[in-house]
Parts: sequence; C-alpha cells; structure tokens
Amino acid sequence: MRGAVLYTPGDVRFEEHPEPSIIAPTDAIIRMSATCVCGSDLWPYRGLQAVVEPTPMGHEYCGIVTEVGSAVKSVKCGQFVIGSFFASDNTCPHCHNGYQTSCQHKEFVGGAQAPLLRVPLADGTLVTTPEVPTEDLIPSLLATSDVLGTGWFAADAANVKPGSSVVVVGDGAVGLLGVLAASQMGAGRIIAMSRHAARQKLALEFGATHIVTERGDAGVTRIKQLTNGIGADSVLECVGTEEAMMQAIHSTRPGGSVGYVGVPHGVEIDGQELFFAHVHLHGGPAPVRRYLPKLIELVWDRKINPGKVFDLTLPLDEVAEGYRAMDERRAIKTLLRL
Amino acid sequence: MRGAVLYTPGDVRFEEHPEPSIIAPTDAIIRMSATCVCGSDLWPYRGLQAVVEPTPMGHEYCGIVTEVGSAVKSVKCGQFVIGSFFASDNTCPHCHNGYQTSCQHKEFVGGAQAPLLRVPLADGTLVTTPEVPTEDLIPSLLATSDVLGTGWFAADAANVKPGSSVVVVGDGAVGLLGVLAASQMGAGRIIAMSRHAARQKLALEFGATHIVTERGDAGVTRIKQLTNGIGADSVLECVGTEEAMMQAIHSTRPGGSVGYVGVPHGVEIDGQELFFAHVHLHGGPAPVRRYLPKLIELVWDRKINPGKVFDLTLPLDEVAEGYRAMDERRAIKTLLRL
Repeated sequence: MRGAVLYTPGDVRFEEHPEPSIIAPTDAIIRMSATCVCGSDLWPYRGLQAVVEPTPMGHEYCGIVTEVGSAVKSVKCGQFVIGSFFASDNTCPHCHNGYQTSCQHKEFVGGAQAPLLRVPLADGTLVTTPEVPTEDLIPSLLATSDVLGTGWFAADAANVKPGSSVVVVGDGAVGLLGVLAASQMGAGRIIAMSRHAARQKLALEFGATHIVTERGDAGVTRIKQLTNGIGADSVLECVGTEEAMMQAIHSTRPGGSVGYVGVPHGVEIDGQELFFAHVHLHGGPAPVRRYLPKLIELVWDRKINPGKVFDLTLPLDEVAEGYRAMDERRAIKTLLRL
Repeated sequence: MRGAVLYTPGDVRFEEHPEPSIIAPTDAIIRMSATCVCGSDLWPYRGLQAVVEPTPMGHEYCGIVTEVGSAVKSVKCGQFVIGSFFASDNTCPHCHNGYQTSCQHKEFVGGAQAPLLRVPLADGTLVTTPEVPTEDLIPSLLATSDVLGTGWFAADAANVKPGSSVVVVGDGAVGLLGVLAASQMGAGRIIAMSRHAARQKLALEFGATHIVTERGDAGVTRIKQLTNGIGADSVLECVGTEEAMMQAIHSTRPGGSVGYVGVPHGVEIDGQELFFAHVHLHGGPAPVRRYLPKLIELVWDRKINPGKVFDLTLPLDEVAEGYRAMDERRAIKTLLRL
C-alpha cells in the first residue's frame, strides 16, 4: 500500500510501504474512511522536532475493522471505529483514573495517513459507532479522534464550568475546538485570540463571544480589560510555545486554571512567576479515549459539527500538499480522503 | 521598642526602632502575645534572597488589639486576633474567590518579631477568637497565622480527599503541618519524606503512616514502590527548590495533584517534562485568611495541636539564637515569647 512518510523537514512522500498485519492477538486492522494532518505533525515537518528516520505519518483515524487478533472481544470486523493516538488497555489504574494517554501499556499509533492501520490494544482503544455512519458524518467523527478530544481536554483541564470566563490561546484546529468545547460546557464568555479572518469566523461560529487580536503582553492587557482587571477563570493554551504558555498564565485570574495541550517545545516555566500567578496548571497528552463515547454521541446526534475545522479536503495521494497548506496557514486542517 | 532587624545574611539584631502607629484609618495596632521565626525568613538569612536594607523581620503574629483606625469596624481594642502575612481587604474579587494573598489591595505585614505591630486592612485581615485564650493555646493559635495555614493550603492545592494517598516533600514545620492537614482531610496514607529523627516522630504523631528517607530519584522510586508503581494521588511540595519540585512532580500519578507552597528559589520547570507527567500543579502564597476561621476553631476546640512544631521557645530578645537554631536544623521552629 502507499502512505505518507516524512523523510526530512518539509519532505513528506506518498510512497509504497508494507501493509500492516496483526502482530499481537490484541491488535485490530482498520481500513481508513478518512484521515488528516495534525498540528503536531508540523513540528517535525518544520524541523522543530528531530526526524531520526523516515517515519510513517498520521495518528488520527476512523474506519472499518477488517481483521482482529484472536484475543479481541469487543470489536468486530465490519464495525466502524474511532481511536486515539495512544492505544490504551483501558483497564490499568491510569486508564481507570481517566488518563489513558498515560496507560501502563500505552503504544503510539502511527502511520494513519495510509489506507490500512494496525491499532494495538483494540478492545481498550477503539470505540464503535451505533452503525456505519453516512458520508456527511465522517469529518466530524474523524475530528473526535484527536483534535476535538484535545480541545475538549484543554477546556476540562482548565476547569470550564457553566458561566466561566474563558480565553483560548491558539487559533489552530485544537484551539477552535477548545472554543466549541467551552461553549458546550456552558462558558459565559469565550474570548478567542486570533488575527486570522477565517479562523475568527469559525471561532464565532463555534461559540466565541469575543475576538482578541493582540498577543503577548498586549494580549494579556486586553484580557485584563475584558475581565474588569481580574483575569479569566479558565485559559486554554493550545500552541506549545513559551510565549503562549506565559500569555495563558498571565491571562488567568488568581485561583483560575490553565489547561494546556500544545506539546511544549522549548518551554521553561519560571517557578517564582508561576507561584505568584496563583493559577492551577494542568495538561498533557489529551486522554481522548476518556471523552470518545460522549463526543461520538454528540456528533452522531448532530449536536456539534467539529468537522468544520477541515477547510481543505484532498485525496490521500496529495498528502504533501496537505502539509504545505497547513504549514503556510492556507488551511486550518487538511482532511485526507481515500 | 526593640525588635528583630536583619542587616546582612546571618546578622539578625534585636534593636531599637520606632513603635508602629496608625497610618491609614483601616489599620490596627496589636500587642504581640507571641511570634516566631518562619522557614521563609531563612532565605534572606542564608543569603539566598537579597537583603537590600536593614529589614524588620517577622510576619507571623497573634495578640491583643491596642488601637484601631477610625474606619475599622469589626475589630475592637482588647480582642485577641490572628492575621496572615499579607493584609487583605477580604472584599475584592480575588478575596471572594478565596485568594486573599492575591488581594487587589494586599500589603505585606512585616516586623512582627517585635512587641507591637501595625496591621493594615484590619477588618479584612484579622480574625478574632471567641475570647482571650488561655496561655496553653497560644502556640497553636500562632501556628494558624502562617505555618499551619500554609501546610493546609498545600494539602488543599494537592486536592487531598478522604482515602487519598499523599506524599509530603519537606520536613520543615510547613511540611509537618501539611501532614496534619492531610490527616484532617481524611487521607488514606500519608508518606512523609524525612531523614531527621525528631521530625519523623512528629510527622507520625501528626498522622503520617509511612516515612521515606530517600531523596531525589531514589525517593521517587521508593514512592512508586509504596504505591504499586502508580504514584501518589496528592503530593505536597513544602521546600521551594528545583529538586523538591521535580521530586514532587515525579512522585505524583498521572492525573494526580502537586500542591506547592515552598517559595521557589531558582526553580525552572521544563514544559515537556511537566506535560508528560500529566499532573495538576497548583500553589503560591497560601491564602491563609481563607482557612483562618476553620483552623482557629479546630485549635480552640482542641482538636488539633499544631503548636507542637515549636520545639524551641526563647524570649524575644534572643531572636538571633532562634534563627541560628533553625538554620542549623537544631530546631524545627522557634517560638518567641514577650
């Protein structure tokens, strides 16, 4: 089969590599209905994370089960399933605590930008839909696999409650779906930080009540103005740079919460600055599996439409253009169809 | 009057300086019943924090009100009162949210190692006892002013709940009272990290169920062994060094919480390490005022005896020896009587 392989920064190739097969009896193989390019794929693509060897790319997936290992019990061939970027057994203490991305047996699921994918720990990892979905639901169901689940975790980690004042730092797909999550959680006001017209529009559509275009210290000042000098109850950090993290911390009121999901690159947090900011800080790799049943239900019942973050759809063999468009911020997120 | 003044590291003098007087109509003057030396006083004493000018020391206090400003309403002359190291109006939004140490009008209360003290924002800051206490209650009431309130906040920030597994990093007075707080909150197991016999004994008396003597990575390994490889639900960081902070973070299970109250000195937290640790982090200057009414009640009803952390009592004029004894770890905490 042919799939996306990253060779060096900027060099994504669509090329032949071996079809996956069942290795462990707990594995399943799925035939992708759709896949996509993640903001985190851009870190190595941009050379901000080492590419040690040619790497099959992609970790967001949904599709039809074509084969299961002998120990798989809850998932059957022909079912439509969705999973997250870390396979998890969903039975260990960390999974029970809702932190499946810290599962004691976690395994990264890579190589999803291809027609077939091996998913380890299928029973713990995959969630089925009530039936095989209609075409129009595919983008939103795919979004639950990572980008919506991650935005949702950001809002949850930032302790968004009914009536909360919320700030979202980062206008990528995760940030935009953080807006949607905060809105679903009943936030009172949602301030999206963006200077990009198309993303501002989508943020408003997802429930943002205010747009702030300033960044850094000027951004913090603007947030303070909008919150009577107090700061926000909840701030979602959806970027992963030190500037974004400090902007998030300084935009939060004392006792408020920062939920951060941008994979930190070069971020150092000064202990004393954090101490006197008096904020709660929580984040990490989003335990999407915790939220999948609920998110799938919301999509299935057509209560949310997170698939709107896909503003570029390409056939899988044009995956390289999908990366380029996101890198150049011509696209928010690229959907890849098979 | 004569009080303690820090000139340079190691040089605390008990010397004449002006008596405090009412400056703002919201001030009160109190005559100290007892005061003490704080672990945080040792930072400048040890030269780990700059001493810009001769500084009147001490910020833990309880005593009898001798004078109030014209705007003070709830506090009267002759009442016994306790306050915290930051004066707060207790009416601003941050105070309402329970973060009085981030009060919009906060003011540091310094110079308490002296017979008289000016306390700003008296109505918001001072809490009265039901009547003037008997002698034997004074040490424990004084402890509520900072060290107990700070240990309590550490446990609260670390989200200690009935049944929680708890680790306390730091065997100073704050750490020991963190043990007491966790015990009061119903923790299931409380692991105190200490290699000092007298402190281990007090930790056990305050409710610790286990003592761990290892530190750093070895300490983390030991905690993992004691928690089935999972890590603790709640870890209290009561030191303020990078080693203690990292030890706390790595001892916590994914999804667990670190409550940190040690004033950070030279602490830098690596963003990616924190991200993958998956912990909640909360701390800062303890909003002791939030807890004072409850803590005073617990002491008043003789349900807790936090005054046991004072293992050295000196007359105020021997304050310099009080610092030395704590610096050399001959004393856990020095009580100063007038």
